[in-house]
Amino acid sequence: MDPEMFLEVANQVTKLKMFPYFDIAHAVLCCLHVREDLGANTHPFSRRHPLTTWICCIFEIFAGGMLASLFLGEPVLSPLKSNQHLLLYTAVWYVIFYCPFDAGYKISKFLPVKLTFSVLKEIYRVKKVYDGVTHSLKIYPSGYLIALIIGTIKGNGAGFCKIFERLLRGVWTPGAIEILQPSFPTKACIAASLIFLLDKKTEFISAPHSLLYFGIVVFFVYFKISSILLGIHD
Amino acid sequence: MDPEMFLEVANQVTKLKMFPYFDIAHAVLCCLHVREDLGANTHPFSRRHPLTTWICCIFEIFAGGMLASLFLGEPVLSPLKSNQHLLLYTAVWYVIFYCPFDAGYKISKFLPVKLTFSVLKEIYRVKKVYDGVTHSLKIYPSGYLIALIIGTIKGNGAGFCKIFERLLRGVWTPGAIEILQPSFPTKACIAASLIFLLDKKTEFISAPHSLLYFGIVVFFVYFKISSILLGIHD
Amino acid sequence: MDPEMFLEVANQVTKLKMFPYFDIAHAVLCCLHVREDLGANTHPFSRRHPLTTWICCIFEIFAGGMLASLFLGEPVLSPLKSNQHLLLYTAVWYVIFYCPFDAGYKISKFLPVKLTFSVLKEIYRVKKVYDGVTHSLKIYPSGYLIALIIGTIKGNGAGFCKIFERLLRGVWTPGAIEILQPSFPTKACIAASLIFLLDKKTEFISAPHSLLYFGIVVFFVYFKISSILLGIHD
Ligand SMILES: [Mg+2]
Ligand SMILES: [Mg+2]
Ligand SMILES: [Mg+2]
Repeated sequence: MDPEMFLEVANQVTKLKMFPYFDIAHAVLCCLHVREDLGANTHPFSRRHPLTTWICCIFEIFAGGMLASLFLGEPVLSPLKSNQHLLLYTAVWYVIFYCPFDAGYKISKFLPVKLTFSVLKEIYRVKKVYDGVTHSLKIYPSGYLIALIIGTIKGNGAGFCKIFERLLRGVWTPGAIEILQPSFPTKACIAASLIFLLDKKTEFISAPHSLLYFGIVVFFVYFKISSILLGIHD
Repeated sequence: MDPEMFLEVANQVTKLKMFPYFDIAHAVLCCLHVREDLGANTHPFSRRHPLTTWICCIFEIFAGGMLASLFLGEPVLSPLKSNQHLLLYTAVWYVIFYCPFDAGYKISKFLPVKLTFSVLKEIYRVKKVYDGVTHSLKIYPSGYLIALIIGTIKGNGAGFCKIFERLLRGVWTPGAIEILQPSFPTKACIAASLIFLLDKKTEFISAPHSLLYFGIVVFFVYFKISSILLGIHD
Repeated sequence: MDPEMFLEVANQVTKLKMFPYFDIAHAVLCCLHVREDLGANTHPFSRRHPLTTWICCIFEIFAGGMLASLFLGEPVLSPLKSNQHLLLYTAVWYVIFYCPFDAGYKISKFLPVKLTFSVLKEIYRVKKVYDGVTHSLKIYPSGYLIALIIGTIKGNGAGFCKIFERLLRGVWTPGAIEILQPSFPTKACIAASLIFLLDKKTEFISAPHSLLYFGIVVFFVYFKISSILLGIHD
């Protein structure tokens, strides 16, 4: 691949449109996560408490945005304002939990499908981290720690809200708090936030922005694929 | 009752002034609720921890308003700004918990009195749901889910904050979360919010607003009276 | 001491610059508090989870400011915007937890040193209570309860956030909630907030402001010294 074409690809990646494919991938993986957290209890629980599973899925999907809003003094519910997204996510929730023959769940667990969704989600994650850092720096231009926190939370909100998502289902697991045992995505989001911050606020990083962004995307995608193929769980 | 007079009554109901009678009814029932949640422990606990019982009562009384403020990015404590209301609620708290001969508690548990307060509270509840939906739609004109959440929370805030109110007393009951086992008032508030939303945003409901509002009031009051008289507890 | 000189001293106390000595004293005591809460577990825990200890210390140091921001609808993370303070606090955290020979911890536990830091912290505490009451009254001029709450929280934020700071370490102790068993600093902060409120909003207190402020400082410092020397723990 000649350098110019490479730069062109990198440039395209920074401008990818997220709706609807990346949103679907994110939602599918969040719903799968909620469902697998229910474990063997999934079938009876999801039949008896459909409202609860829906609220848990919506909460997990929007966790990063809602937590970031709380931390920045914006309305906590503002991420829920798009009806188009809500309809899409409700459809995903229905397919994952209540599809006839459990087809939705089985298909999304099929390795090539799961791999595709995971790759899309990682690309989306980098965008969220970047948007979080940028948004935070607009509000607090020299609030470096705030930018790191917001970038990390936007990138892995579900991880930080896991114990609260469980609380919505009546399950309280204080020992599972993310800060105590940060998962790989959390550490990767901290690193990515730091790199974006250095790029924005210092001259240490001389690479063009799109290359840097693309490099982080490649890193996130590479480690996600490895961890799925090698069966590593964080 | 001829239709015109009926419409007139409905119209009056939508314009009822809430202060002070409806506020008293709401406060009395909230304080009773806190007290009964203490169970057999009430007497020693309320004597040793008067500040805690006061904070719990005030928190439960304002729960809906504070939670809605948090969700809409408004100051969480703003519902506490009226000193007139606070004085009234403090008087109610005192009467329910510390009245000589426990007269306040006994009178408010006397069936006709409790029934009256309950009816007033249900009328107030409908107003809170309506105000919540309206206020939310002013901020997010197409945020339908946000309007439903705010309407429901304003209508039954105490239900959603129950586990946090208990936490203020050092008691943690994650399994009692409202979302998992929505009580009747929660379900009724969701339905009422939905009806108000449909009335505001669609043409499905052709009935005049005051009739719709009155209908919901009648429904809420009817079910409350039934549940008290038949001894049904949600 | 002649009265004029006394008033002059009082006046100076109200205008003390807090950065950096008072901030250091506050941070040292917060870090000590986190460390002692870890108990016998300190050494292994702090080696395995340095990020967690840092987050806990920073959270405890800023607890009052963050909680007050949440309650007043301001960005929760805004107290973190000063990089100068964050660097200072990070240095304090490092010295208390990871200093060679544990020198930082041992020195700060040495009675004259601890006493000095405690005196500085109490002076700082009065300033925080005063600033909290003033700030709150600017937003809600007649929100007396709000001013009391904000003053108390700014003065003893760490106390109110203790159970959440523990949650960050995976430890959940709902029974240790501050409201149920208010510590001496909490009660003193409530009293100080009330006095500042009376001074601002009524004519009951005719003493000049600087004398009143100085009196509260003396009271706070006197009781802190007594409690340390007499070994009283709240
Ligand atoms: Mg650069
Ligand atoms: Mg209509
Ligand atoms: Mg005065």
